[in-house]
Amino acid sequence: MRNRSEDLTQVIEWQEGKVRRLEDSVAGEEPLEIRIGRRSVAVTMRTPGDDAELAAGLLFTEGIVESAGQIASLEVPRRSNNLIRVRLAPGAKLDLGRVRRNIAANSSCGVCGKVSIDAVHSRALRAPNPAFRISAELLCTLPEKARAVQTVFGRTGGLHAAALFDTAGELLVLREDIGRHNAVDKVVGWALLAKRLPLAEQVLLVSGRGGFEIVQKAAIAGIPVLACISAPSSLAVQLARRMQLTLAGFLRGRRFVIYSGEERLRIAS
Amino acid sequence: MRNRSEDLTQVIEWQEGKVRRLEDSVAGEEPLEIRIGRRSVAVTMRTPGDDAELAAGLLFTEGIVESAGQIASLEVPRRSNNLIRVRLAPGAKLDLGRVRRNIAANSSCGVCGKVSIDAVHSRALRAPNPAFRISAELLCTLPEKARAVQTVFGRTGGLHAAALFDTAGELLVLREDIGRHNAVDKVVGWALLAKRLPLAEQVLLVSGRGGFEIVQKAAIAGIPVLACISAPSSLAVQLARRMQLTLAGFLRGRRFVIYSGEERLRIAS
Repeated sequence: MRNRSEDLTQVIEWQEGKVRRLEDSVAGEEPLEIRIGRRSVAVTMRTPGDDAELAAGLLFTEGIVESAGQIASLEVPRRSNNLIRVRLAPGAKLDLGRVRRNIAANSSCGVCGKVSIDAVHSRALRAPNPAFRISAELLCTLPEKARAVQTVFGRTGGLHAAALFDTAGELLVLREDIGRHNAVDKVVGWALLAKRLPLAEQVLLVSGRGGFEIVQKAAIAGIPVLACISAPSSLAVQLARRMQLTLAGFLRGRRFVIYSGEERLRIAS
Repeated sequence: MRNRSEDLTQVIEWQEGKVRRLEDSVAGEEPLEIRIGRRSVAVTMRTPGDDAELAAGLLFTEGIVESAGQIASLEVPRRSNNLIRVRLAPGAKLDLGRVRRNIAANSSCGVCGKVSIDAVHSRALRAPNPAFRISAELLCTLPEKARAVQTVFGRTGGLHAAALFDTAGELLVLREDIGRHNAVDKVVGWALLAKRLPLAEQVLLVSGRGGFEIVQKAAIAGIPVLACISAPSSLAVQLARRMQLTLAGFLRGRRFVIYSGEERLRIAS
């Protein structure tokens, strides 16, 4: 059997001088190639599972497709679990220049962070839903709700998660992956295929840290509030402020830090 | 001031209903573009600092240069802190086909993990030092030694680290970065520029998880033992076994799990 979100393997545990052989679960990691027609547009190392969502989300957050309507089909060919073929809808044209620009833009321009920020800004034109509000107390309950359904992480300890919640704090969808950016793309792809974009009334929670790329994907999906369990980076903070997106970090227990967009969080005591 | 490994910024802390405004430190994240002559060969989002080492390490682990002798100079042009110009030594020729192949190979072939593993195997021909040994007890002391010098992490909570230790458990070098792969490239680049490759008598410790790419970089640098604080992935385990590299995970306190190459760890009780 191939292509699994986790693998069972023989390992040796050493603990305070005692040696034990056991079978352990490790998080799955395999490359996924995304082709549009005959052209390979992206390859990403990912945890197998929800591959159609991952492909749809990646094509959307990278700006290669702009709506669900541009995707006619997503197909995993027989004999390959690590390839996904995308057929564009009649009329939707693959702009090869754009693919190249976006592959470059993904790693960004290389000259300075500001140009990277401008590139995102030019794609997500409006600030995400300025009227959205969520209470600080409700925000603090989200990590526990996400952990309750992080099944593969529980067994492997090796996966990131991205989870989407509504204003009432109800979990809409959670996706896991060895790559945090893939977990976010799976969530965005889920929303794209369900025709739920933009995610103007939702909070995105990500495990671990929040870098530039995570804020970028949230902004492009129209998400008003992004919360991270750990720290954001300098460029993530700059982009969130520029996009007027709410960015919270270190969301643990009954504490968090707000880096941008405090007006969406009801924090008054 | 630009181009810093950390940024001071105004934030709001919410804790159990109490709101406090304060200045906080966030980990720096900016794109670095690496050019050989006029050609842009890579752009990576990284934490500024040790950029020459990062560029050298990336060029080496991606197979674009094969030795320190092929690099004539690494230069950061005035007016740009996020660009590094590499001049190759006379006689060293940039194989553009190889650059393209490696950019593809980096994300790997897309068809299956096995091809990715074969690609690494073809570059790091021999198993890393089969005679290398380190005791389990000594291995357990390494994370604490690394944490003691993780200065930026202490202030920002947002950085990964890679650290190299000798057989006696002495720290040789530690590098921090928002990207774990960059931290490893900085360490390998340090070794390349110091003409210390292959790292046949060293242990590499990485914070967090160990994916395929981390094992790949360790293998190419000839490192016999790779230890991770958290979990490895399935493909990382497969590659370590194929390369006969020792891979330990969940190195915390006086416990770890061995996924590959147990013979290098003195674990007998």
